[in-house]
Amino acid sequence: MAERITPRDENYSQWYIDIVLQAKLADYSPVKGCMVIRPRGYALWEKIQQTMDRMFKETGHTNAYFPLLIPESFIRKEAEHVEGFSPELAVVTHAGGEALEEPYVLRPTSETIIWSMYKKWIQSYRDLPILINQWANVLRWEKRTRLFLRTTEFLWQEGHTAHETREEAVEETLRMLDVYKTFAQEYLALPVLTGIKSESEKFAGAVDTYAIEAMMQDKKALQAGTSHFLGQNFAKAFDVTFQTRESSMDHVWATSWGVSTRLIGALIMAHSDDKGLVVPPKLAPTEVAIVPIFKNTTRAQVMEYAGQVRDQLKDSFSVVLDEDDQNSPGWKFAEWEMLGVPLRIEIGPRDMEQGKVVVARRDTGEKTGVNKEEVRATVERLLQEIQANLFNRALKFREEHTEKVEDYPAFIDYFEKESGFADSLWCGSPECEEKAKEDTKATIRVLPFDQGNLDGSCVVCGKKAGHRAIFGKAY
Amino acid sequence: MAERITPRDENYSQWYIDIVLQAKLADYSPVKGCMVIRPRGYALWEKIQQTMDRMFKETGHTNAYFPLLIPESFIRKEAEHVEGFSPELAVVTHAGGEALEEPYVLRPTSETIIWSMYKKWIQSYRDLPILINQWANVLRWEKRTRLFLRTTEFLWQEGHTAHETREEAVEETLRMLDVYKTFAQEYLALPVLTGIKSESEKFAGAVDTYAIEAMMQDKKALQAGTSHFLGQNFAKAFDVTFQTRESSMDHVWATSWGVSTRLIGALIMAHSDDKGLVVPPKLAPTEVAIVPIFKNTTRAQVMEYAGQVRDQLKDSFSVVLDEDDQNSPGWKFAEWEMLGVPLRIEIGPRDMEQGKVVVARRDTGEKTGVNKEEVRATVERLLQEIQANLFNRALKFREEHTEKVEDYPAFIDYFEKESGFADSLWCGSPECEEKAKEDTKATIRVLPFDQGNLDGSCVVCGKKAGHRAIFGKAY
Repeated sequence: MAERITPRDENYSQWYIDIVLQAKLADYSPVKGCMVIRPRGYALWEKIQQTMDRMFKETGHTNAYFPLLIPESFIRKEAEHVEGFSPELAVVTHAGGEALEEPYVLRPTSETIIWSMYKKWIQSYRDLPILINQWANVLRWEKRTRLFLRTTEFLWQEGHTAHETREEAVEETLRMLDVYKTFAQEYLALPVLTGIKSESEKFAGAVDTYAIEAMMQDKKALQAGTSHFLGQNFAKAFDVTFQTRESSMDHVWATSWGVSTRLIGALIMAHSDDKGLVVPPKLAPTEVAIVPIFKNTTRAQVMEYAGQVRDQLKDSFSVVLDEDDQNSPGWKFAEWEMLGVPLRIEIGPRDMEQGKVVVARRDTGEKTGVNKEEVRATVERLLQEIQANLFNRALKFREEHTEKVEDYPAFIDYFEKESGFADSLWCGSPECEEKAKEDTKATIRVLPFDQGNLDGSCVVCGKKAGHRAIFGKAY
Repeated sequence: MAERITPRDENYSQWYIDIVLQAKLADYSPVKGCMVIRPRGYALWEKIQQTMDRMFKETGHTNAYFPLLIPESFIRKEAEHVEGFSPELAVVTHAGGEALEEPYVLRPTSETIIWSMYKKWIQSYRDLPILINQWANVLRWEKRTRLFLRTTEFLWQEGHTAHETREEAVEETLRMLDVYKTFAQEYLALPVLTGIKSESEKFAGAVDTYAIEAMMQDKKALQAGTSHFLGQNFAKAFDVTFQTRESSMDHVWATSWGVSTRLIGALIMAHSDDKGLVVPPKLAPTEVAIVPIFKNTTRAQVMEYAGQVRDQLKDSFSVVLDEDDQNSPGWKFAEWEMLGVPLRIEIGPRDMEQGKVVVARRDTGEKTGVNKEEVRATVERLLQEIQANLFNRALKFREEHTEKVEDYPAFIDYFEKESGFADSLWCGSPECEEKAKEDTKATIRVLPFDQGNLDGSCVVCGKKAGHRAIFGKAY
């Protein structure tokens, strides 16, 4: 890793790309806008998948798999849905050497194909609820792409549930938003704002879209997950009715919710520094790297001692003993830092003589001498401390870059300085939202659940406010 | 489940479809040749994935993800590869509302896109080996499809490795074949023949293809997994060279290997019966179903007792307590049998009074009274016995339907009766292989590793034999 990582202050976008490429998380592919997720990046996705999959199953969901290809006519059945997704569709027109009678689109999301199946499976309230999740690849033909954050093809999960009543579907929508929030905060160490989206920012086909929104280190907002209350829109589009408990017929109520490999981009952007990647311990594929420091004469002894330390840790932690003979200790320290391993244990001849090791934290750089017998307990404690510190650091950063902004000149001024989130009042009109966007590039990220004191005037037009809104420039 | 499953003797193909649909493993979709994998079927795939993924990691592999879309020109770079796959390709010609300059094909397999990346990543022997696996969906435009066994889109894993030497690549090819064999025999309870494929049956682009082949209950052969030694074919097609330890330049040596959701079809066809699905315990999402038998007056007591039995088991086994009040015990027994749950525990008031339960095996139907205190130990023992019994039963079936066939009239006669595998000698000529296929529909499944005594004559032409070959009619 002789290559230099561009410092954040110099060029934030390049800093991000440098980390993704140099830590070998992903690479550009020969396919426009599509990335290759390399083993180190995919290992992060596997940790994310395992954790979320467990959370989905604990809330009663099962996994299934639906076709990648969707008949083009299906996408057209829900009016807002087709309008939202048409510009982004990739289309299969030929297969098996022949032109197809009806083209297929590659799924940009699976509501339509799934609701065409739910029509087959749902007759009565006894068939409800259906609580299905799918882990899959999806394609959206994006003009401007960026590794992990926005790619033409990406990996995600999409939950699609069907319910008897509006109340039950709304409850499910909010339950899954809460699962996302818990995952973001407890695992990604990413503080998130939760709330509802404005009309202009909601999912094409939803009645209401809820989201978790995070702040990155450049103070921009990143939408990290969405949960949609779909009402009866897709049930009506696909004519999915059921016999109710009262023997009448009704359309089924629906939700959908998803997070994607974008979360890896969020993780990188929220925590990393100019030395490279920083990974929250709970999602780190490697938690501890042991780097022995030796000369030819001391190699055997130091390696043996380091091996003992590894053996102390290996049952409880994911630990790697660096056995490389080619590079200097300093080079190796920098390498493990660049790769984002939360803890590094350095062991030289002097440490060995004293029965000690040095433990270095990736998040703060702090080094501590520890008795060999205490390594296990120290590692356990420090991993917890790092996890908490990353969250607290990101929360403090967001709080420091969120301001109550009350009038339009201040609003314009705030976003000219690229200053983060504006916590403002809004009258609710799409015109004010659009004007703010045109003037500042800031959009409404969420209307937070905690609406607070609405006694004041819209930050754009000055009329009576109806909502508290968080504005920010978004990825 | 009032629907009847067609008996195997009456119509084997319909029996298979009945089980897939009635056990809700998969369903037909509105997309030609594509299936929907329903939660009960996907749960089997998850068990298969978890087990194999662990085996891949234990043999040094990591997961990654490559694009679904492959530039059409890439597929053309390897002459045999394009010839083999061209008739099966689905092609994306339009995206984002415009015609594409170069069409993309949907991956039928990923050698070409992966080797275009390996070219970027490999410069020196220090970059080798690369041991990457991918879990993904692939598409092959098949004319005749059948749920799980052959579908236009299917889920699979594909390993793609790169090596310094021929020897190392051959070793890897055989190592992964062995992993497949172990998985098939120890988890799927599926005895498999292993060996090399003839030229006409090998993978388009491989030097050598090895396979695991199993016999289904209709005595047909099912190829359950393949491992390919690719030589330097793809390295040459994509110009992937590396600096050797001797500082010369050489093309990289390659392997690829894959199994798919077809394994679920194999599992069903190998073990199930006229009552429905039979699942080997090691892959059963639910291992034990407890069915309480009660009247209104005894319900509370029996349920409490059944709950105690469940609590005894739940830490060690995946267990479901059937709390349904709508259906009769007999209906529930049939239902759990149809779903393939390996053990059913029946508990009625009399069992309860005696401090007992009845344990029923799915594979043999055998019922045993067991003291409540012994349930845990009995379940553990019976699950092992069922796993072993399924394997032994399938092995015995294959052995009973494998015959040494030495001359062509006997060969013709054997396959007229649809009699299973013919263990025969073969001269090695493609003409004899083709003639046998035309006359009998039987093809060479493998040339087994154990070539045995080759002292004899080709079963087709009568000339001197060079190979022992297993012939069979294949899925």
